Amino acid sequence: MSRLEGACMFGQSGGPTSVINASAAGVIQEALKQECITAVYGAAHGIKGVLDEKFYDMSKEDSYELDLLKTTPSSSLGSVRYKLKSADEDETDYKRLLEVFKKYNIRYFFYNGGNDSMDTCNKISKYMQKVGYECRVMGVPKTIDNDLWGTDHCPGYGSAAKYIATSTMEVFHDARVYDTGMITVLEVMGRNAGWLTAATALAAYKGNGPDLIYLPELAFNVDKFLEETSNIYKKQGKVIIAVSEGCKDENGKYIAEAGTKDSFGHAQLGGTAATLANIAKEKLGAKVRGIEFSLLQRCAAHVASLTDVNEAYMAGQWAVKYAVEGKTDYMVAFERAEGSEYKCNIKLINLTDVANTEKKIPSEWINKEGNGLTEDFVKYALPLIQGESKLVLEDGLPRFAKLKKVFATK
Amino acid sequence: MSRLEGACMFGQSGGPTSVINASAAGVIQEALKQECITAVYGAAHGIKGVLDEKFYDMSKEDSYELDLLKTTPSSSLGSVRYKLKSADEDETDYKRLLEVFKKYNIRYFFYNGGNDSMDTCNKISKYMQKVGYECRVMGVPKTIDNDLWGTDHCPGYGSAAKYIATSTMEVFHDARVYDTGMITVLEVMGRNAGWLTAATALAAYKGNGPDLIYLPELAFNVDKFLEETSNIYKKQGKVIIAVSEGCKDENGKYIAEAGTKDSFGHAQLGGTAATLANIAKEKLGAKVRGIEFSLLQRCAAHVASLTDVNEAYMAGQWAVKYAVEGKTDYMVAFERAEGSEYKCNIKLINLTDVANTEKKIPSEWINKEGNGLTEDFVKYALPLIQGESKLVLEDGLPRFAKLKKVFATK
Repeated sequence: MSRLEGACMFGQSGGPTSVINASAAGVIQEALKQECITAVYGAAHGIKGVLDEKFYDMSKEDSYELDLLKTTPSSSLGSVRYKLKSADEDETDYKRLLEVFKKYNIRYFFYNGGNDSMDTCNKISKYMQKVGYECRVMGVPKTIDNDLWGTDHCPGYGSAAKYIATSTMEVFHDARVYDTGMITVLEVMGRNAGWLTAATALAAYKGNGPDLIYLPELAFNVDKFLEETSNIYKKQGKVIIAVSEGCKDENGKYIAEAGTKDSFGHAQLGGTAATLANIAKEKLGAKVRGIEFSLLQRCAAHVASLTDVNEAYMAGQWAVKYAVEGKTDYMVAFERAEGSEYKCNIKLINLTDVANTEKKIPSEWINKEGNGLTEDFVKYALPLIQGESKLVLEDGLPRFAKLKKVFATK
Repeated sequence: MSRLEGACMFGQSGGPTSVINASAAGVIQEALKQECITAVYGAAHGIKGVLDEKFYDMSKEDSYELDLLKTTPSSSLGSVRYKLKSADEDETDYKRLLEVFKKYNIRYFFYNGGNDSMDTCNKISKYMQKVGYECRVMGVPKTIDNDLWGTDHCPGYGSAAKYIATSTMEVFHDARVYDTGMITVLEVMGRNAGWLTAATALAAYKGNGPDLIYLPELAFNVDKFLEETSNIYKKQGKVIIAVSEGCKDENGKYIAEAGTKDSFGHAQLGGTAATLANIAKEKLGAKVRGIEFSLLQRCAAHVASLTDVNEAYMAGQWAVKYAVEGKTDYMVAFERAEGSEYKCNIKLINLTDVANTEKKIPSEWINKEGNGLTEDFVKYALPLIQGESKLVLEDGLPRFAKLKKVFATK
């Protein structure tokens, strides 16, 4: 272990979650404690804030407000979707980052995000190594999608899963109050990996869940969907279907392709539930409802999993501890301890390995019919949604953190 | 007070809420205690269950499960949307009801619902009086819409308002994480009365709410919406708009008229948020999001208001108490006590007065610009969302009531 003195920079990136700020609290509170860390900066809108020299001096914040970050949804410092070009292709951004790092003596860089953000983190880490600027770089995982490679699960997933399972159970009750037939289609986020949609299987495990679950891991076939829906409709009169926004047909075409793309070149999706509900209505003559969980599934801090909040905090905290100990070029990851009782340990994985690799649902956890999950998935996911987040309330409504956001200057 | 011995029939009607089963628990548990009530029946799917002679013997249920009804969303006995014709026009249904009432010696009839259900309740009450069949009839109010005449507020509203205000606060945080512009349109339920949409003003009161709130009480003008949205967009870059699904233009046309109608002849609405988001995108060139709270706002028991749960229970309980005391032909209603501290008292209002009369937001509670609420609304609504429902959890998920539903026979 070699002592390295200097400032630390922390940034949030990608789509927000209910607990990304818990990781921020973990990084910031731990960094403020460390003697070798001379200043703690929070980048406004991730890497863009570093490039623009716009970042906050986190020592100026009240400790009570920093504590409230643990239960405040979304990215309080601001997030970004900004793709760094490879340094071989265009060094401009990297040179600018190096300039800012030198100016503020930034020796610790913590970046909190999903796949694309770990790619950013990895590129910065490798560049700083190449130019010989000593800076410890650590990735902190975050994504409701749960699709980061090399970690048992991702901070953000447990809370989104808890929201989805709880809401599915509630919709289950609502969808069967009338004695008339009803087909309800629930649309869940998840572009390529079905972890979020699979969370509806937890509601099914409690007896209040969907009859059919369609994941993006398998090609979606409208005729199969109609046949399976029709069979259940004829028997029960009520059908609940959970479908991923990312389901594609055998030609790779989304059920409801919008045609627009985000800045990473991913297709912007939506309207899958409405599309399928309309198809069911037309072909089966049933009354239908299409429901999108929409943004709510990634920001519903009021029903966050305490396990998730604590682990998200721990991920941030350990990123700092390991960096201070001398580790660099890693992402903090989770390892589930052996044994019947759930326990989550911290491990480190190389940034190179995690960047841009997506983890999907193992095929053996999908049932033979391709329309549901096995018990192994339930065993995997159930521990992640345990416990209720200690939301602070005022006037019966959440009291979220209010940061001063004092810009750092030099 | 005259003692009347006989069975009681309880039914749930109309759209479900998070707390309609709390009223069911109030009626059933109180009725089971009363000596003069010889049997407690729960109608399967409201009045239709009575007509079809399909109702459950509630004495067969476990008391633990009846207790769980307090925190179980939706109508556990099943609901219905069935409009009774006037008895002058067609007596068939009434004769059948009388036949069933006589067969089971039903002397108490409790009906839990909104405007249409109070109309049903009133018609039955008047018919039984006309034919001289002694039966005490009491309406128990229920509607997330909060539009029942003669009561300070309705059971169901507080919980829906708490869900809407909480979710709006969370979306507020989510909608401002990027440093790019964003216009977010939230669509809230409410056909003619804006109480639910107004609940987003509670989020605004906490500093995390919409910039613009459009209620169905005022004619909606697309040009005004665009101008007001554009002004805020230019200033802030972020705009959040809450709009009622029931907003109509000056010609009475819904923003996104679907053209289909429900069994009461009401137009089936939806897509208002998406329609307005698209208009904003086209005209202002902004990035937009349309979010429907959809069914979730009426079944989110996990974030129910404890005040609402308790009052819903009390409304059911007092309907029974008053009926046993000799009262009939009334709806149980709420009266807010004078003074600075919130206290809710029970009163009775004539069924004739309440049936089919809608209560809208007083015009003096809408701001001059017609795009927000005054402080008087906040004062009115805030007490209704206080306290957190004591949801029973198993495996980190709600444990809802499981009724045996044993059919009564004779």
